[in-house]
Amino acid sequence: MKQVTVIKIGGKVIDDPGQLTGTLAAIARAPGPKVLVHGGGALASATERQLGLTPNMVNGRRVTGREALEVAVMVYAGLINKNIVAGLQARNCRALGLSGADGNVILAKKRPVGEIDYGFVGDIVRVNRAFLTRLLEDGLLPVFSAITHDGCGQLLNTNADTVATALAGALAGAFRVRLILAFEKPGVLDAGGHVLPQIDAAGFERMAASGVISEGMVPKLTNALEGLRNGIAEVILSSPAYLANPGTVHTKVIL
Amino acid sequence: MKQVTVIKIGGKVIDDPGQLTGTLAAIARAPGPKVLVHGGGALASATERQLGLTPNMVNGRRVTGREALEVAVMVYAGLINKNIVAGLQARNCRALGLSGADGNVILAKKRPVGEIDYGFVGDIVRVNRAFLTRLLEDGLLPVFSAITHDGCGQLLNTNADTVATALAGALAGAFRVRLILAFEKPGVLDAGGHVLPQIDAAGFERMAASGVISEGMVPKLTNALEGLRNGIAEVILSSPAYLANPGTVHTKVIL
Repeated sequence: MKQVTVIKIGGKVIDDPGQLTGTLAAIARAPGPKVLVHGGGALASATERQLGLTPNMVNGRRVTGREALEVAVMVYAGLINKNIVAGLQARNCRALGLSGADGNVILAKKRPVGEIDYGFVGDIVRVNRAFLTRLLEDGLLPVFSAITHDGCGQLLNTNADTVATALAGALAGAFRVRLILAFEKPGVLDAGGHVLPQIDAAGFERMAASGVISEGMVPKLTNALEGLRNGIAEVILSSPAYLANPGTVHTKVIL
Repeated sequence: MKQVTVIKIGGKVIDDPGQLTGTLAAIARAPGPKVLVHGGGALASATERQLGLTPNMVNGRRVTGREALEVAVMVYAGLINKNIVAGLQARNCRALGLSGADGNVILAKKRPVGEIDYGFVGDIVRVNRAFLTRLLEDGLLPVFSAITHDGCGQLLNTNADTVATALAGALAGAFRVRLILAFEKPGVLDAGGHVLPQIDAAGFERMAASGVISEGMVPKLTNALEGLRNGIAEVILSSPAYLANPGTVHTKVIL
């Protein structure tokens, strides 16, 4: 079975131009078909503030009002996405920037209002695997911002880890899929600040209950475990250095 | 020879939500393969002001400093492009949003500094016709923002009429290409404010010299005439109403 690597790079990697450049170079060099998903949280928050808005985060997820959605679309699908695509093209990668609306590749629905009203946040309904597979077969490197749509003209903001996991899960039927979540830490840390070589569902639940794992790491690992249950072959959490050198310290997520 | 329609919609059409909705509906209904190019000038200027920057236009072209380029990428390739794509998807159009960097579809070079330093403005070097043709053959509707790249990682701002004409010209080798420039006026106006049914190169030069044709209309017609010389079969200037009804008042550009 052919292998596809789905790589997610986090907002703090993108905010550091030096780290971003090195990460794009590593992605360009990595062999085989790849899909890239990027966040961009810090820059979106900075742009919101510059426009006189106040960013609002709950449990590591962004609450997205109408104006915050506009900023997310501008920053994620515009500024960050196109700069990454141009940077990869400069390294002879056939990058193609996408939101979920493009080619109807990720259909989502607005999250129902419960205890918290997340606003224009989208929960993924369906990934267009045929379209994505076609792009990979054409030798393209799809670069996803975490903007989705509801099929009725409304754009939605979706967690980038969730997008990466959903894309990886959808491809898992046709490929052996590796999912690499690259972010500002070297992996999942224990209470002593050491990187766990691996973590399983039971370990995650224990560490989440005790508060050792918290905030953005909770949805990241919840997604990763769900992805493994959906057939993703391998999930790795590490720093972007892992992309250039698999000997880099990392955490492997297992069921 | 198969026909392709390249449609350019201007910034003022995009700024009016009602007009944009009607225009997207007309585009969705129009038969045959299509390529859409959008401007978005007014919204970019408004966003620049909101961020404390001062828009700078010379001869109908935007002077693009580093910060203005960031705004252009956010607004054109992000906010406007993705909203148009989502709007077309809602009408069962297989829209795919693109900048020139995506799939390396429009390579440009930064305009040399002459009498005026236009900043990060790109003059088009090459259109990737093979990629564009492949998208059309796949039944996709490419939706272009007027952001290009230089192949070395630098995004550039390009006039949207120029992008539309270059795409139309590149496709002209493989298709019969109609180029429709839809904007806020019903066509090219004479000194009395009446729409000219057609205008040729000699007429344009005369009216530009006398000042009847000025500002943004000058590059629009210069591009249109160059496009006809490059093999575009037909160039129409009209309001968006023309897209739904070809009986609408319009100006046909001829050599």
